[in-house]
Amino acid sequence: MEIEQYLHEHIPLSKAMGVTVLEATDASVLLMAPLGPNINHRGTVFGGSASALAILAAWALLHRRLRGEGCHCRLVIQRNSMDYELPIPGDFTARATLDLQADWAAFLRMLTRKGKGRIGTLAILECEGQRVGRFSGDFVAFGL
Amino acid sequence: MEIEQYLHEHIPLSKAMGVTVLEATDASVLLMAPLGPNINHRGTVFGGSASALAILAAWALLHRRLRGEGCHCRLVIQRNSMDYELPIPGDFTARATLDLQADWAAFLRMLTRKGKGRIGTLAILECEGQRVGRFSGDFVAFGL
Repeated sequence: MEIEQYLHEHIPLSKAMGVTVLEATDASVLLMAPLGPNINHRGTVFGGSASALAILAAWALLHRRLRGEGCHCRLVIQRNSMDYELPIPGDFTARATLDLQADWAAFLRMLTRKGKGRIGTLAILECEGQRVGRFSGDFVAFGL
Repeated sequence: MEIEQYLHEHIPLSKAMGVTVLEATDASVLLMAPLGPNINHRGTVFGGSASALAILAAWALLHRRLRGEGCHCRLVIQRNSMDYELPIPGDFTARATLDLQADWAAFLRMLTRKGKGRIGTLAILECEGQRVGRFSGDFVAFGL
């Protein structure tokens, strides 16, 4: 997949993590990472890997949608929070969507008018069909 | 350093990130990671790497202090938040301390009495002498 190649080439940690793109639409992006390169001292997924997969999924969703709008703008993460709800004992996924309160049209308007817009994202982490974590992250896009 | 070897052996992502331990005391743990393996598509540090370094620093601090108390307990991250204050254009560090409100004695009492205690940590990220990010994370320790 194009976005997978882009991630591996430009963000080497995504390659070290073994990240693959399972699905990418305008509604959501689903990434997967195997346990092996992301394991911790307890045989479960390292929290830093869980966070990183969620950030990559959220970034990829916004990157894809902005490209779809013809906007090759700079996209920067501003803040995030992460709840580690359960240990992750195997390969895991992160599905990113826009935040429920996010207003895509208003975001694009701000980006066009002010050269800068902020948008919220969510990501749910799953392992073996069970929800194991929840990520929330705000990104800022800068028009070029 | 003992803790560096432990991280590289048990959390392979820390090795892929090139994490080194610059300082480790009971008051704080200072970790460093080079830009190279942590770079993003903009030539600055990937947010996932910044978060992961902070998590490792906070974990290492608690791990070290608990060992110092003779407690070989299980230590799990419960939640964290991260503010990405500035782009990180080079090698970077994360210095973890206990949260200002954290009460180590109360944490140990809960761990001893209930078999479970929760404690808050902070980490400040720096690059080239400038503060570039702030991490806050809660961990839970389980007695064995």
